[in-house]
Amino acid sequence: MSLHAAYDPDNIFAKIIRGEMPCVKVYEDDDILSFMDIFPQTEGHCLVIPKAAGATNLLDAPAEMLGTVIAGTQRIARAVAASLKPDGVRIAQFNGAPAGQTVYHLHFHILPVYEGRAVAAHENAGPAATGELKALAEKIRAAL
Amino acid sequence: MSLHAAYDPDNIFAKIIRGEMPCVKVYEDDDILSFMDIFPQTEGHCLVIPKAAGATNLLDAPAEMLGTVIAGTQRIARAVAASLKPDGVRIAQFNGAPAGQTVYHLHFHILPVYEGRAVAAHENAGPAATGELKALAEKIRAAL
Repeated sequence: MSLHAAYDPDNIFAKIIRGEMPCVKVYEDDDILSFMDIFPQTEGHCLVIPKAAGATNLLDAPAEMLGTVIAGTQRIARAVAASLKPDGVRIAQFNGAPAGQTVYHLHFHILPVYEGRAVAAHENAGPAATGELKALAEKIRAAL
Repeated sequence: MSLHAAYDPDNIFAKIIRGEMPCVKVYEDDDILSFMDIFPQTEGHCLVIPKAAGATNLLDAPAEMLGTVIAGTQRIARAVAASLKPDGVRIAQFNGAPAGQTVYHLHFHILPVYEGRAVAAHENAGPAATGELKALAEKIRAAL
């Protein structure tokens, strides 16, 4: 899909926000939702998204939405660091398919990184067991 | 260096902000500075940093600083997209050495991505010729 795509109200994250698709939730408030990536590149890989529809990525997001989502990303990243005790944390946000974007609803990736353990390439990351994701989400939530 | 390092006022970005080290500037205002990465992973790879000292990364940044820097990152990313016409744009922010952080002053990477052209791994990216970086910065500036 192009770098500048139209927003599709039936994208998978919009369905998750509306409760039409499940997710393993980390955090939710009026403005943002955070949940575990079901194809984790590392243990504890989670996402932060705005609950409002309309922005496909960083390029077309209203400034206020972007500020809210990065503040939420910081909050969740701090909890990931405190709970899972990784050696590093990567924040990533992709715009356009060649950059790695697969869902066209603005989202930030939080990727805990551990010394001696590889980060799976996005295209090679396999699906995680729901029970494992729930246990990780529970740990992160406890540090919020 | 650890995920939670003390801020060193003599880190290379602090020196760039104070004018003690050169950079190929893309944009500057009272709050942020954007300049070309001298080890570009792709053509047009640039950075956005707060001018205020004190934050080593996203985890220890004050909320207001983070909002200002992400707004600036959006502005520069839009200009990168408009001027260099990449097929995608990656935004990346690293916390801790194992995550890829090498300078301990908060910064966001803007990485234009082009179909059919590889993104160099951070550790394999070689230094760019200053003249080439200046030409790219000039193109981006023209789209701001």
